[in-house]
Amino acid sequence: MASQEDHQSRDFPKVLLLKPMSTLIGEQPFTSTKFQYLKAYESPLALHQFLATHAQEIQAILSYDSAPVNAEILRQLPNVRVVVTTTAGVNHIDLPECCRRGIIVANSGDIYSSDVADVAVGLLISVLRKITAADRYMKQGLRAARGDYPLGSKLGGKRVGIVGLGHIGSLVAKRLEAFGCQISYNSRKKKPCVSYPFYAELRELAANSDALIVCCGLTEKTYHMIDKEVLAALGKDGVIVNIGRGPIIDEKEMVRRLVQGELGGAGLDVFENEPDVPKELFALDNVVMTPHNAVLTPESLKDVAKHAVGNLEAFFANRPLLSPYMDE
Amino acid sequence: MASQEDHQSRDFPKVLLLKPMSTLIGEQPFTSTKFQYLKAYESPLALHQFLATHAQEIQAILSYDSAPVNAEILRQLPNVRVVVTTTAGVNHIDLPECCRRGIIVANSGDIYSSDVADVAVGLLISVLRKITAADRYMKQGLRAARGDYPLGSKLGGKRVGIVGLGHIGSLVAKRLEAFGCQISYNSRKKKPCVSYPFYAELRELAANSDALIVCCGLTEKTYHMIDKEVLAALGKDGVIVNIGRGPIIDEKEMVRRLVQGELGGAGLDVFENEPDVPKELFALDNVVMTPHNAVLTPESLKDVAKHAVGNLEAFFANRPLLSPYMDE
Repeated sequence: MASQEDHQSRDFPKVLLLKPMSTLIGEQPFTSTKFQYLKAYESPLALHQFLATHAQEIQAILSYDSAPVNAEILRQLPNVRVVVTTTAGVNHIDLPECCRRGIIVANSGDIYSSDVADVAVGLLISVLRKITAADRYMKQGLRAARGDYPLGSKLGGKRVGIVGLGHIGSLVAKRLEAFGCQISYNSRKKKPCVSYPFYAELRELAANSDALIVCCGLTEKTYHMIDKEVLAALGKDGVIVNIGRGPIIDEKEMVRRLVQGELGGAGLDVFENEPDVPKELFALDNVVMTPHNAVLTPESLKDVAKHAVGNLEAFFANRPLLSPYMDE
Repeated sequence: MASQEDHQSRDFPKVLLLKPMSTLIGEQPFTSTKFQYLKAYESPLALHQFLATHAQEIQAILSYDSAPVNAEILRQLPNVRVVVTTTAGVNHIDLPECCRRGIIVANSGDIYSSDVADVAVGLLISVLRKITAADRYMKQGLRAARGDYPLGSKLGGKRVGIVGLGHIGSLVAKRLEAFGCQISYNSRKKKPCVSYPFYAELRELAANSDALIVCCGLTEKTYHMIDKEVLAALGKDGVIVNIGRGPIIDEKEMVRRLVQGELGGAGLDVFENEPDVPKELFALDNVVMTPHNAVLTPESLKDVAKHAVGNLEAFFANRPLLSPYMDE
């Protein structure tokens, strides 16, 4: 990453960094020879003083993790024309303020999507074929003592309902087609170019599915969308996989059903009150949990850095952004 | 299943059963109205007496699990013309004796293949993306206490070497293509209709793969085929998945490398001395183990029964068998 003191970089466009890069990825992958970073967190100045000092020269903000870009910050920087974030979500950016001021926002595009889709499928296989539970059984040395572990259930022919057929949902569907699953979906509206059966009613999708995979984002409309009725429709042999956001499912109801055997199993990367996880799930062999990291691999983090730099370089070269964020 | 005492069944062709059906599946799915079973294990007679009593009328043998059909049995039954087994493997049938006597053998065909392929992919995802290990971490309540679990590694772009590109290997490849993996393979010979890169030397395949998936059968040639050199070529970040047979891998060497960090991880459904499993693997988070049940789901067991009955009915109706076994 170019140093602020680098003599040659004085005329480079300036990009504001509000917080240090995640230690998962470090600064190195964000290096560019086309612009220069101004790091607020390395300055002895308070943030508002730092921003006042550099107000005229800052043309872009690189945002990552959840370093918020709020209206207060934006108002101090009259020449900012673009905000680039390394995340897929843009909740931490004040979009209305950006819109008012004509600031373009770019996100990580679809870079994380395949990683999330991979884990969604991994969770489903692990629940259906009891891989995680069997591994635990084996590692406790129980095979010789107690004999065969119970069989799991076949993937082929399973009716899988995708909740939210965006880019991630489509990648999940594509993968599961290769396993011989029968895909159908629920989405805000029917997709004209998709041949999978569409269910306008989530409950109907659940009633016609052996497994539901929650792939949508969290909005006011999707909050607790997987409720008592949907879970009841999915039934006692049904499996739910959630790689969207925890609060999309009524977690209390889901946990109750899992504990009482009214739901067949669950593969969960996200939870309603993270990092807390319902302790009732700890003892359940038909539940597989990952710590909200479906989206992350070191390979994708590198891609994301490259992509963020690409967005900034494109902007400064007056080329179209790689992944402008468009509110649907 | 038709009773031996059933009046109407006296003229039906007779099929010998040597041992009771597996309790996993029971007798019901094997029912047919086209032939009659003679159950040696229900008779008070010793086996050789039972066979002598029914020697002339037995035209077929239904073999399952590993009830052996050896030369001694076959020699007592001059009118047997077909042996149908519910297994994919035919090791428990004396093939040379069948061949000498013109007895046709039928196996389970490819019914189990998709289940095995599903678990192969499930094991690979679980090892690479650390799903099983993360689930254990979560269920021990360590997330709140210790924070983020280490990230796994991306599936997309991984170079996966298929060892043995038969039906199972092809199904594994098809699934992994949907994840964006780069497939290549080693087999007895190059397949003319396959576009994946072929490596005649297993060591060369390993050197050019991030993961190897062992899909071949166990023969004298494949015994310890995955040896010290192959594992060294796969390297310290390489992952090995075995859904073939345990002794195809030099297990002692594999365990040593896993323990010493000279191999990246392993997904193992089979072991060299089953049901024993190397205890050194119990503590390893980068190893995922299942108890040699990749092949089994209740759904497939039903299909297998239907298929075995179909083979027998086809035989007695002078139609081609559904899945005659052909020695390659």
